[in-house]
Amino acid sequence: MPFAEILKNVVDGTDGALGALVVGIDGIPVDEYSVGSEIDIQSMTVEYSSILKEIEKGSQAAQLGSTNEVTVIAEKAMIMLRRLTDEYFLVLIIKPDGNFGKGRFLLRMSVPKILKEF
Amino acid sequence: MPFAEILKNVVDGTDGALGALVVGIDGIPVDEYSVGSEIDIQSMTVEYSSILKEIEKGSQAAQLGSTNEVTVIAEKAMIMLRRLTDEYFLVLIIKPDGNFGKGRFLLRMSVPKILKEF
Repeated sequence: MPFAEILKNVVDGTDGALGALVVGIDGIPVDEYSVGSEIDIQSMTVEYSSILKEIEKGSQAAQLGSTNEVTVIAEKAMIMLRRLTDEYFLVLIIKPDGNFGKGRFLLRMSVPKILKEF
Repeated sequence: MPFAEILKNVVDGTDGALGALVVGIDGIPVDEYSVGSEIDIQSMTVEYSSILKEIEKGSQAAQLGSTNEVTVIAEKAMIMLRRLTDEYFLVLIIKPDGNFGKGRFLLRMSVPKILKEF
C-alpha cells in the first residue's frame, strides 16, 4: 500500500486530524497527506524533527534507551511523533479538540504497514 | 496540601509509576516523590527540562502557541511533562508497562491542586 494511502487512513480515521507524514530525521518529508490548511505542516515538521533529535540525546543521556514516541500538546495542535526506523518517523497532527487516543492507536497500527514498504 | 503529598497521590494512584516532581524550567526540582530506584530521576529531569525549552521554542516557531504537555515514550520509561506556570512544570515517570492513561489523568487533576499552593 502506498505511504499516502496509509497516511490517509490514519487522518480520515481520527476526528480532528489535520495531517500525517512520513519524515526523515533531517526534517524532510517523504510523503504526506493533509486536510485543511490551518497549520503550516511542513515548517512545523522541520521544527519538531530537530526536537526529536534533542529528545533522543536526552533519553540516551538519561539512560532510558531509545525514544519510540513523543507527543506534544500545544495550544493550537497536538503532534504525535512515532519512530519508524533510525532514520525515519511518522507524524500525526490533530486539532486540540480532536480524538487523541484514536489518533495514537491508528498511528501505532500503521507503523508495520509503512515498514513493509521500506 | 503540601506538594509531596499531591505527588504521592499521583504516583500511588498510577500502576507502574516511579516518581513525580515539581520542577523549575531550569531543571531544579522543587519537590519530588519517588518509589524504587530503577531510574536516576534527578539527572533525567535535568535532561528533559532543557528539551522542554527546545519544544517550547519549536511550538512558538511553528505558531502552535505555548506547549501544555509533552509525553516521551522511551524503551525504559514513559515521561510526562505538564506545564504549571511559565517557570514550573510537573513530571511523572512511569515504567513502560505502567498505566499511561491513568497517570495522565491524575497528573492533569493535580495541576490545580499544586497551583493553589503557588
